Amino acid sequence: MSDGAALTEDAVGDTVLSIDAMGGDLGPASVVSGLAKASAKNPTLRFIVHGDKPELERLIAKKRGLADVCELRHTKDVVTMDAKPSHVMRNGKDTSMWSTIEAVRDGDASVAVSCGNTGALMAISMIRLRKLEGVNRPAIACLWPSRNPSGFNVMLDVGADIRADAEDLLQYALMGASYARNGLDLSRPRIGLLNVGTEEHKGRAELKVAAELIDRAAPAADFEFVGFVEGSDLPSDRVDVIVTDGFTGNVALKTGEGTARLIRELLEQAFKKTPFSRVAALLAFTSLRRLSKRIDPRRVNGGVFLGLNGTVVKSHGSADPTGVAAAINLAAQLSATGFHKRLAARIAQAEAAASVAIQKEGSSE
Amino acid sequence: MSDGAALTEDAVGDTVLSIDAMGGDLGPASVVSGLAKASAKNPTLRFIVHGDKPELERLIAKKRGLADVCELRHTKDVVTMDAKPSHVMRNGKDTSMWSTIEAVRDGDASVAVSCGNTGALMAISMIRLRKLEGVNRPAIACLWPSRNPSGFNVMLDVGADIRADAEDLLQYALMGASYARNGLDLSRPRIGLLNVGTEEHKGRAELKVAAELIDRAAPAADFEFVGFVEGSDLPSDRVDVIVTDGFTGNVALKTGEGTARLIRELLEQAFKKTPFSRVAALLAFTSLRRLSKRIDPRRVNGGVFLGLNGTVVKSHGSADPTGVAAAINLAAQLSATGFHKRLAARIAQAEAAASVAIQKEGSSE
Repeated sequence: MSDGAALTEDAVGDTVLSIDAMGGDLGPASVVSGLAKASAKNPTLRFIVHGDKPELERLIAKKRGLADVCELRHTKDVVTMDAKPSHVMRNGKDTSMWSTIEAVRDGDASVAVSCGNTGALMAISMIRLRKLEGVNRPAIACLWPSRNPSGFNVMLDVGADIRADAEDLLQYALMGASYARNGLDLSRPRIGLLNVGTEEHKGRAELKVAAELIDRAAPAADFEFVGFVEGSDLPSDRVDVIVTDGFTGNVALKTGEGTARLIRELLEQAFKKTPFSRVAALLAFTSLRRLSKRIDPRRVNGGVFLGLNGTVVKSHGSADPTGVAAAINLAAQLSATGFHKRLAARIAQAEAAASVAIQKEGSSE
Repeated sequence: MSDGAALTEDAVGDTVLSIDAMGGDLGPASVVSGLAKASAKNPTLRFIVHGDKPELERLIAKKRGLADVCELRHTKDVVTMDAKPSHVMRNGKDTSMWSTIEAVRDGDASVAVSCGNTGALMAISMIRLRKLEGVNRPAIACLWPSRNPSGFNVMLDVGADIRADAEDLLQYALMGASYARNGLDLSRPRIGLLNVGTEEHKGRAELKVAAELIDRAAPAADFEFVGFVEGSDLPSDRVDVIVTDGFTGNVALKTGEGTARLIRELLEQAFKKTPFSRVAALLAFTSLRRLSKRIDPRRVNGGVFLGLNGTVVKSHGSADPTGVAAAINLAAQLSATGFHKRLAARIAQAEAAASVAIQKEGSSE
C-alpha cells in the first residue's frame, strides 16, 4: 500500500481517482469490492481512498493486488445519508466525503467518486471546488437507457437544484452537449428541452424563452437543437441530451427506475408461474440476462456533477459492488478524455460568443 | 338505431355515455370498434355517439347489435389533434367534441368519453360544464400500474394545468381520494405528495405548505396522508394516490409509458435472439401475455377530468379499439358508482370544514 507516498497524477502518469469509501447504504465493504472489480478491468487506475484507515486496510488486504493501487487517507467522520447539507458544510471538514473532494481540489486526483448523500456531496463540491467561471447553477447529469446506437441518452439536471430559469437551461444544454461528446463520443449531439408537449404553444413561459436561447446558441456550440421533447422521448433515438430543471428531472429519473424495477419483478413472477414458464426461463436465460443488464439501474450508475472546477461522480446510495464499479469506470472515462478541461473551454467560448452578440446588438441600435 | 328518439338516462334507466367518435389519431372506425367491444362486455350500456352521421351509420351497422344501443348526433366539424384550445373555444361549436360535452351538460348522458386533443377537450369542458363549486383548478387523474392489490395507483394532475399552488394541491388530494374510493373501491385511500426526496427539508417551498394543508385535511376528508413520495414510489404499495402539479405529472406519466414501451421492445428482441429463446417464448407465452397486459398502457387507458360539473374521460389520442373500450369501461364504472355526485359532496364538505376551522381560529384570537 503506497500510503503516505505521493500518488498524484503528475507523479505516476496514470489516472488517479479520489474515492469516498464511507458513504452509501452498504458501507465500505461494498465500495472496496467495487474498487477491486474496476481495478481488475482497468489495471492502470490508481485510487486515493478516504475513510476509516484500519477498516479500509483490512478490507483492501482481502483483495489481491488492490493495495498496490490504493493510497489511503484517514478520516474520522462520515456524512450520514440523512444529514442536512447545511450542517455538513459547517461541520463536515473531518468527513471522508470532504477529504474526497479536497483531493480533486488539490490536483491529487482528476475525478471524485462518492455513494454518499447527494445534497451534502453537492454542497461540499460547491464550496470546495467552486462553480466554473460563467456557470450559475451546476447540474447533475445521468445516463438513460435509449434506442440510440450508444444505448444511452444524457439527461440533466436530475437533482442538483430544484429550479432553473431560461439562462440555467441554456447552460445545461452547453454542459450536456459537452458531456455527450466526451462520455458518449458524439461529435454533434442533438439537444431536446423537456416539456409537456412538442408543440411550440405548449408549456411554461420560461421554457419558450429557454428554447430560443438554446436554438440561438446551437451553431456556435456545435450541437443540434431538436426543440421540445416529452417524457416519452427520454429513451428516444431522435435526441441525445434531454435538458430540464432538477425537480422534473429527478422525478423522471426515479419514475423511470421505478417502472423498470416493477417490470423486472413482474417478469420474474411471470417466469415462476407455470412449469412451462420455468422451463422457458431456463431456455431464454442468456437473452433475459442481456435484457436485464440493459435495464439494470446499477449498470448506468453514476450521476455526474457538471459546472464545477473538477468532476464529481455521484453513485447511487444503495450501490452494490457492480454499481460502484460502474461509477468508477465512468469516472475513469471522463478523466481519460480530459472532459473537465473541454467543458470549461466550451463554457468560456459560449460566454465569449454571447458577449460578442450583446455588443453587436448594442452597437447596431 | 334509436336516432332521434330520446335515449336519456332518465328515460331508459341504464347507463348512458356520451362518445366523441371523431377525435383521435385512428379515426371513427377505431372508436366504433371500441364501442362494440365495450358493449359486448356490458350489454346494458347505452351510447350517444357524436360525429359524421353517414360515416358512423355505416361503421355501426357492421357491428351486430350495436345500432340498438347507439343514438347518433350529427356534427360537421372535427377538432384536429394540433388545434389550439383557444381557437376551439371560439370556433368549436359544431365539432363532435363540443356536442359530446353538451350531452353531459344537458343531462342526457352521465359521462363523456373522447380520444381527441386534450387541451381542447379540457377547454370545452371548462366553459360548458364549468368548475365545481370550491374548485380552483380542475385536474386530470390517471391510473398507474402498481404493487397494490387493485393493481393500480391514481396520479393527478397529469396535464390539466402546468402549475399548481399549495391550495390546488390540497384540492387534488381531495379529488384524488374521492376518485380512488369510487374507481378503485378503497374506503380510506393513502395520499402521497410527489417531491424530490422524502425528507421534510427537501423540495420546493410550496410543497411544504401543501403537505401541511393536506395533513390537516386528512381526518375530516377520511384519507390517510403518507407525506412526501418520490418518482420511484409511483408503483409503490405504500400509497394509493399521488398528488403533483400537471407539468411534473405529465412528464412522469409519459416517462413511465416510454420506459415500459422500451422494455417491451427489448423483451421482444430478446426472445427473437436465439433458437432457444424462440422456443422459450412459445413456452412462456401465457405468462408473458399476462405480463404484457399488466404493463400495456392501453389497458389503463383513460385520464379522468376531475373538478367539473360532470365527468369526462380522456382516452389516448392513439387509442386502438382495446384502448377505447378500456376508457369506456372506466366511464361506465364511474357512472355506476355515482362518482360525480360523491366528489361534489366531498369538496363541499371540505370547504365547510375549512371555513369552520377559519372561524374557530378567528374567534380564538
